[in-house]
Amino acid sequence: MNLRATVAYDGTDFHGFQRQPGLRTVQGVLEECLSGLAGRPVGIAGAGRTDAGVHARAQVITFEWSGPMPWSRLKRVLFHRLPGDVVVSEIEPAPPHFHARFSAVGKCYRYTVDRGAFPDVFSRRYALHEPRPLDLSAMAAGARELTGTHDYTSFCSSGTPAEDKVRTVHAIRLAEESPLVHLYVFGNGFLYQMVRILVGTLLEVGLGKRAPSSLRDVLEARDRRAAGITVPAKGLTLWEVYYAQADLNRALERFS
Amino acid sequence: MNLRATVAYDGTDFHGFQRQPGLRTVQGVLEECLSGLAGRPVGIAGAGRTDAGVHARAQVITFEWSGPMPWSRLKRVLFHRLPGDVVVSEIEPAPPHFHARFSAVGKCYRYTVDRGAFPDVFSRRYALHEPRPLDLSAMAAGARELTGTHDYTSFCSSGTPAEDKVRTVHAIRLAEESPLVHLYVFGNGFLYQMVRILVGTLLEVGLGKRAPSSLRDVLEARDRRAAGITVPAKGLTLWEVYYAQADLNRALERFS
Repeated sequence: MNLRATVAYDGTDFHGFQRQPGLRTVQGVLEECLSGLAGRPVGIAGAGRTDAGVHARAQVITFEWSGPMPWSRLKRVLFHRLPGDVVVSEIEPAPPHFHARFSAVGKCYRYTVDRGAFPDVFSRRYALHEPRPLDLSAMAAGARELTGTHDYTSFCSSGTPAEDKVRTVHAIRLAEESPLVHLYVFGNGFLYQMVRILVGTLLEVGLGKRAPSSLRDVLEARDRRAAGITVPAKGLTLWEVYYAQADLNRALERFS
Repeated sequence: MNLRATVAYDGTDFHGFQRQPGLRTVQGVLEECLSGLAGRPVGIAGAGRTDAGVHARAQVITFEWSGPMPWSRLKRVLFHRLPGDVVVSEIEPAPPHFHARFSAVGKCYRYTVDRGAFPDVFSRRYALHEPRPLDLSAMAAGARELTGTHDYTSFCSSGTPAEDKVRTVHAIRLAEESPLVHLYVFGNGFLYQMVRILVGTLLEVGLGKRAPSSLRDVLEARDRRAAGITVPAKGLTLWEVYYAQADLNRALERFS
């Protein structure tokens, strides 16, 4: 049976999502737990292969399950067996060909910046501290320049294997929750470190180092060096994954 | 010069506020840092001597400072020297006899309960997970029974040295921030573990194990065994300290 699960994790103590020999990863911890319960190896697929230090509020995974434990008991049993920094909150049967990554039509990532003079201790694992004044309306104007369907080579970690680098960013929305400001980035797919480079470039706009209108040139340069810094992983959270255009549209409406 | 400072800390990795030989405590970390800067021992007084695992949003401390570094530079230097889980956000000169603890007229503690079916990973260090249904209006009714000026012996950890156990609880206010619910407890002073026992007893009301009206009897029993459980430290945060009745009143008004 093909199962679909929703997973939240605090990425602080993980070397990212993807399994790596000898390192603590989200996929590794989940597969080890599921395999132990199944009595045979269970492999999972995740919607987003988040980097080391990146968090997830609603990562989606799929995996094949053939017992012996009924799938309806899995959620409760996983809760008691998994460490406190990874929580599986939903498990349900999915159609046979449903795949966490390949069936997704869009994703939302959230990046959080702490604008306080001193960092908020309770957000320090989940936010980048930036006490310098930020021009949020310039950032919002810059965000509009960066949305649409473009070749995002400039916003992709250099050294990434050659492939089609055209993606659609539906929207980048800023939401204040003082002293925090969140950037919600909606897209149909993201290149390696793309969200962190988009945010780093927008922060430079907020700090007055770049004009919002200059970002069109950054896109056109198709050169990583034209864009801004890669902001630290700890501020990034995989927020939501969409499997129907209608769900993505509804999420976008909530932000307009 | 007598200085007053505002301190926030994540209590997870501290053995409480008060200095203890060989243990990592908030007072120990702050005194060691200040003494290093002063070149002589500096002792601090805290408004609330929070227990192991309890957090603070705005703990207040006082200490004598005689340089060589000017007090106005201390905040910035402490920020760079202190570990990430303790942040000094304000430092200012105070009148000679101002004392963080003895000058306080009231304090507010916040206790956070996570009511989600599964715990929120990002709140897990700062909230008690209680997925069973809670009757919040019964809890609010119970909270009213527990406010006023009373002998709070029933809400004090047994074995506490004999002393006057009369205290005034001005208000206990519930605030929902789904899936979390916060209990703000305002009082002129608190006995050992008093807030955690008040909250534990109110949770038993919320779970239907006690009637709100029964709490008057619990107070009158003057017996720790009459009250409910002591909830875990991790959900508790020293929220605010008041040094003028007007400030306390203003804070109470914000909650009515």
